[in-house]
Amino acid sequence: MSLDSLLREFDALEEYLKIKPLYFNLDDRTFTWLDTRLLPFEEVYHTTRDYRRVAEAIREMEIRGAPAIGVSAAFAMALAAVHSSASRAEDLLGELEEAKRVLASTRPTAFNLFWALDRVMSRARSVEPDPDAIRQAVLEEAFRIYIEDIRGNVEMGRIGSKLIDDGDTVLTHCNTGALATAGFGTALGVIRYAWYEGKRIRVVTTETRPVLQGARLNVWELKKEGIPFKLIVDGAAGLVFRRGMADKAIVGADRVILTGHTANKIGTYTVALAAWHNGKPFYVAMPTSTIHPTRDPDSIVIEERSPDEVRRVMGKYPITLDDVEVYNPSFDITPPELITAFITERGIVEKPFEANLKSILGLT
Amino acid sequence: MSLDSLLREFDALEEYLKIKPLYFNLDDRTFTWLDTRLLPFEEVYHTTRDYRRVAEAIREMEIRGAPAIGVSAAFAMALAAVHSSASRAEDLLGELEEAKRVLASTRPTAFNLFWALDRVMSRARSVEPDPDAIRQAVLEEAFRIYIEDIRGNVEMGRIGSKLIDDGDTVLTHCNTGALATAGFGTALGVIRYAWYEGKRIRVVTTETRPVLQGARLNVWELKKEGIPFKLIVDGAAGLVFRRGMADKAIVGADRVILTGHTANKIGTYTVALAAWHNGKPFYVAMPTSTIHPTRDPDSIVIEERSPDEVRRVMGKYPITLDDVEVYNPSFDITPPELITAFITERGIVEKPFEANLKSILGLT
Repeated sequence: MSLDSLLREFDALEEYLKIKPLYFNLDDRTFTWLDTRLLPFEEVYHTTRDYRRVAEAIREMEIRGAPAIGVSAAFAMALAAVHSSASRAEDLLGELEEAKRVLASTRPTAFNLFWALDRVMSRARSVEPDPDAIRQAVLEEAFRIYIEDIRGNVEMGRIGSKLIDDGDTVLTHCNTGALATAGFGTALGVIRYAWYEGKRIRVVTTETRPVLQGARLNVWELKKEGIPFKLIVDGAAGLVFRRGMADKAIVGADRVILTGHTANKIGTYTVALAAWHNGKPFYVAMPTSTIHPTRDPDSIVIEERSPDEVRRVMGKYPITLDDVEVYNPSFDITPPELITAFITERGIVEKPFEANLKSILGLT
Repeated sequence: MSLDSLLREFDALEEYLKIKPLYFNLDDRTFTWLDTRLLPFEEVYHTTRDYRRVAEAIREMEIRGAPAIGVSAAFAMALAAVHSSASRAEDLLGELEEAKRVLASTRPTAFNLFWALDRVMSRARSVEPDPDAIRQAVLEEAFRIYIEDIRGNVEMGRIGSKLIDDGDTVLTHCNTGALATAGFGTALGVIRYAWYEGKRIRVVTTETRPVLQGARLNVWELKKEGIPFKLIVDGAAGLVFRRGMADKAIVGADRVILTGHTANKIGTYTVALAAWHNGKPFYVAMPTSTIHPTRDPDSIVIEERSPDEVRRVMGKYPITLDDVEVYNPSFDITPPELITAFITERGIVEKPFEANLKSILGLT
């Protein structure tokens, strides 16, 4: 698919991008992103021609969310390519390898980051060894990754929206919206699609301690869309379901394994328990690339993050003593018995999960 | 029981009061309390001879926790009595009624507050109409309420400690310690008693959003005692039980009804689900005065507090936009099927809860 046909596809998808958290401007060959650290208080976009500045933005979490990081890294490679003055293919490829190294060092556990960088680099090496051909190939591959992400999200939204009824109140946890992806979002994308279809829905979002993606990012996205919502502390999810104040939950996933065990933002498991104990559906929305063909939930390593995320709110406000011992796991594992179905860009996956997840991956 | 014999009983209990959040000094007839709003950063005690200053301390939440509020109000009545210059019984009783009115207006939903004020006032009216006799009666009744609370807590601790094994890690939610009572505490009192018995235990405390009683008050109390602990965000309770990082949970209660349904700090229900889903015991520790002889959980009114508690952390730091719609219930209801047993000052209450709760209350 050429850049022109990619851009035509993008034009068709653009109606879904009320929030464009990142984009590449072909006219002046710059990359622009929304600084999520300042949300919801300030809406600041940064623009650069320098891939190193994108690396800094990823490292400093101006850009966060696995798909958003992957796409931004791909566009950073495009910046490195199109602004290089190299006149020999091998010089350009050397510069791209250096850019890849710099970008890969920003978030050492981000799977999507390495995947995107490898994909761009492979493409650069697969064309004829001519600088202009390489530049064009890198730019195209970055756009391809970008548009694939948006296309997958919109498709996931279209499929998942069937599970949302007019009048529903949907509870969500953490940010899985435009701000975590190239645009549109996964779980929040499903909610967004239902809203665009004209369904009169309401959202309950947890604040999502410790990093407060709900209070900061969901609040900002939901206000942008005009979707009515309420903010709750994470511990209120139980009461909300018990009192019938939410009809279902939709969350995203960092990793899903074949048994259906789902790693996602810390607190997801208790939200799932709250829904399940009150007989409400609990859905997980994620691209099929999130499914790992393994079967042992205990093999999922739980990343522990800095205690300061808990000790200081918003990265600065102290809520407890600086020397307090903290356990700060970044995600938890929701067992499959609490999950009603998975929503992917290829369709809804119901029970039995193992057979159906294998089937959607084309595994036998 | 005379003041002298009350004070002898107090002396016997004092070994349990490593933290004395409030006390009445008989030498200079002053009341002293720890300002919980400044914890854990500053340990500031205030002392006054003026009951109005105690009313202010309750209203401004320098003193919080139902038992602590009740005891402080009783001591405030004692201040009003002993510092009154009234020479006629009816003048003194009039002043005490005015003090009662001022104190009752501080926290309009605090059941313990009214109970303590009524009790002191009834006592004042039950003795001979002589100012000195009234002063003595009010002072004695305040000490009686104070010592009854401590005695009940220590007894609850002794009884509940049997459920804690050497080597256990106990998860708790919200502050139910010395800082919520006249001293020692309820759920945290059970943990404290086990520690004093020499059991090598560890504690996991949630931070307890929105008001952060865990991060601020439990952290301060546990450090004072030297009990090893870890702080977690509320949403991490599920993972903690799933990974076997806690052996049981103990929480307090705002109200327990005969069916066993338990109203307690928001987030308690999801902690209970997390324990139960992983086969771990979940205990509720509360004085028998917390048990209400009703049977309909839906009749429990859930107090909604200010949205600013969620929007601003520690009463000041903004985490989201000021106009965001918030649902901020102050407690939730844990259903009896998730509760292993109740711990009271009269014994442990196991299933069937209704028969056994009635029995412990002396109802037939």
